[in-house]
Amino acid sequence: MDSMNYLDYVDPGYRTKDHELTCTYYLEHSKDIDFRWAAGAIAAESSIGTWTSLSTMKENIKELAARVYRLDKENNTIKVAYPPEVFEAGNMPQILSSITGNIYGLEELRRLRLLDVSFPRDLTEKFLGPNLGINEIKNRVGAKDRPLVGTIVKPKLGLNSEDHSKVAKKSWKNGLDIVKDDENLTSMQFNEFDERVVKTLEKKHLVEEKTGEKKLYFPNVTAPVSEMKRRADLVIENGGKYVMIDILTAGFSSLQEIRDYLEKKDRDIGIHAHRAQHAAYTRLKDHGISMLSIAKFARLVGVDNLHSGTVIGKMEGQESEVKRIYSFLRSDWYDKKTTIPVASGGLHPGLVPKVVELLGRDIVIQAGGGVHGHPSGTEAGSKALRDAADAVMEGISLNEKSKKSSELKKALNKWGPKKSN
Amino acid sequence: MDSMNYLDYVDPGYRTKDHELTCTYYLEHSKDIDFRWAAGAIAAESSIGTWTSLSTMKENIKELAARVYRLDKENNTIKVAYPPEVFEAGNMPQILSSITGNIYGLEELRRLRLLDVSFPRDLTEKFLGPNLGINEIKNRVGAKDRPLVGTIVKPKLGLNSEDHSKVAKKSWKNGLDIVKDDENLTSMQFNEFDERVVKTLEKKHLVEEKTGEKKLYFPNVTAPVSEMKRRADLVIENGGKYVMIDILTAGFSSLQEIRDYLEKKDRDIGIHAHRAQHAAYTRLKDHGISMLSIAKFARLVGVDNLHSGTVIGKMEGQESEVKRIYSFLRSDWYDKKTTIPVASGGLHPGLVPKVVELLGRDIVIQAGGGVHGHPSGTEAGSKALRDAADAVMEGISLNEKSKKSSELKKALNKWGPKKSN
Repeated sequence: MDSMNYLDYVDPGYRTKDHELTCTYYLEHSKDIDFRWAAGAIAAESSIGTWTSLSTMKENIKELAARVYRLDKENNTIKVAYPPEVFEAGNMPQILSSITGNIYGLEELRRLRLLDVSFPRDLTEKFLGPNLGINEIKNRVGAKDRPLVGTIVKPKLGLNSEDHSKVAKKSWKNGLDIVKDDENLTSMQFNEFDERVVKTLEKKHLVEEKTGEKKLYFPNVTAPVSEMKRRADLVIENGGKYVMIDILTAGFSSLQEIRDYLEKKDRDIGIHAHRAQHAAYTRLKDHGISMLSIAKFARLVGVDNLHSGTVIGKMEGQESEVKRIYSFLRSDWYDKKTTIPVASGGLHPGLVPKVVELLGRDIVIQAGGGVHGHPSGTEAGSKALRDAADAVMEGISLNEKSKKSSELKKALNKWGPKKSN
Repeated sequence: MDSMNYLDYVDPGYRTKDHELTCTYYLEHSKDIDFRWAAGAIAAESSIGTWTSLSTMKENIKELAARVYRLDKENNTIKVAYPPEVFEAGNMPQILSSITGNIYGLEELRRLRLLDVSFPRDLTEKFLGPNLGINEIKNRVGAKDRPLVGTIVKPKLGLNSEDHSKVAKKSWKNGLDIVKDDENLTSMQFNEFDERVVKTLEKKHLVEEKTGEKKLYFPNVTAPVSEMKRRADLVIENGGKYVMIDILTAGFSSLQEIRDYLEKKDRDIGIHAHRAQHAAYTRLKDHGISMLSIAKFARLVGVDNLHSGTVIGKMEGQESEVKRIYSFLRSDWYDKKTTIPVASGGLHPGLVPKVVELLGRDIVIQAGGGVHGHPSGTEAGSKALRDAADAVMEGISLNEKSKKSSELKKALNKWGPKKSN
């Protein structure tokens, strides 16, 4: 009979090995047990253990045990090392079922949060990673140093496909690089996917011919997998170069599938990842899964653009955490290309200098309401947002720039340098 | 210019219509705003609105607005009605992106939880729902009134495919109906999926011939979609009648895909749904998504078995909430078949009467450690679990039953009627 109990999974002197995956967890344990026991429960349940001793346990299996190698009782954090054998290489759902699975429900715990995860090289190899990389994305629209600027067609729902495509056209024509669908706009009765994509890509090509600038459209293909592939095919057939996926509500099995599918189908296609639902588990500081961890999962599977927070928009997000995510997405990471971080949610032209100051120039700045809510409409809103980005590049203030841009001036008058409703 | 602001989404006198989807949310708002404003922000962001007025808003689009029709400030809950047009019928990820999407991140909020969701008939029609239904599942193993009893092969990881199949054989032979893989066991270096499935299904057929009883095996096919389909094919080719999926770490796009795939491929196949990761968002009472809501999403897409809590095992779960989930899964619901609720996690023979008393007989009782941790091993553990279920059927106590079952007696001696480590 196996004599392993939770404490056997705790080894503070243990030195991790290069090929191990490590996780940092925040935890609060139940009153009737101690920190060390709770830490061991996490390592056990996420690898080979369970709540009782087992007749089926063998000596060689114990080598597969995860180990708690750091205990920081003061900060309620632990670090756990996992031997690579407990993971299926190239299977993200399996990895998630291990390190973000049953452990959240353990009765030994009151709170648990995966703060960070570190992948060993071996486990990254079977994942494709991003297709394009930040340089390629910026080259595609000819924006070398400038942050990319884009808009989400608004209202979120309700425009028919013709009106949708017209709003897109106005946005591109007036200086924006990117137009994207909203996260809850897929194929609707009032605006069917196929019609929308055909019309909107037509307009994109028209604007490209007229302006000589290259533009990007991110149509939201989120759906059951076969339909998602069909929609991606339609985008490709109509000359599109990007698809958008709500990666969390679709899920990682389908994201991997689509990434693989596009790799074989057309190496030119990028994936714009929307993170709708993330705050249901990333938002609280003492439970759930950190956005940094999700960013790692997403980059590993291979998204080119990822919504990563704004610090100052309509969505909550702490500066230090958002900066860590941006920094990770742009860093060297084995052989994986970079992912461009996307600042989106409650932004408008007046916030552009602050966003760039906080988050740098290798970003996409997206404004929906902050473009289409412009007092003079979408054209003026688009120009105002682009002018704000240009001002940052020219090293002049928005007030200075607005002397020659009535559109920017009006935007600043409505929203100011800070947000107000 | 549109003049809608968040308060325009609040209409406490509104009477909902049959074809609307309704959600109940718990919320805590930021200090600088009031309850009504926060409620409106939720309805806006999850349907057609955003943080500022829009030049692109049109009168007819306002009909797509979600409406807050109940405000209960005392209990911090609201009810929101959504017109069906804001959803894509048959696209679960899109529905999730709407009602469990961006709203969790709104800066107007400090906490948000989807407590419950009610689907109108129209929106359920394009989902297949469960394939089998509880009666068919129970008939398959010839257990009319009896709760089904099963085990998870333990340790979670480490057994090779041969040993895995032997543990399965011992379990079936000694009275268990079901053997399943663990949630983090997919295709591992030490235990490859194909080998495991072939060997384990072979053993299943052997036991069926020998005992004349029908058995079930739930192999965990969780993977990127194409691989998940290949694994399901292999199961079918080898005479398996069920697959198991970690539905949350795989995600709803892939779950829909596999449900559709199996419907076309082989109408005999059931889906056993493991809920690994759920507690990352279901566990706290004031944030995230309730398990009841997830149970509705899962039944609608079509899972036959769903892990739904034990009340008294190793995993946390409040009695009233667990009972509501069990009750929903077994209730009439449009044309959708029922889903059998699965009690799993920290169970052992001594807990069987209590589980049945709490949750009824139309359930699956699964014990992993509570079988393979038996002092005399898997055979004795399996017999003890089955004997406990039979005792409940016979209306006698476990002590009474254990007079004729030394296996049950030993189990009670190790674990007692209550759990201890």
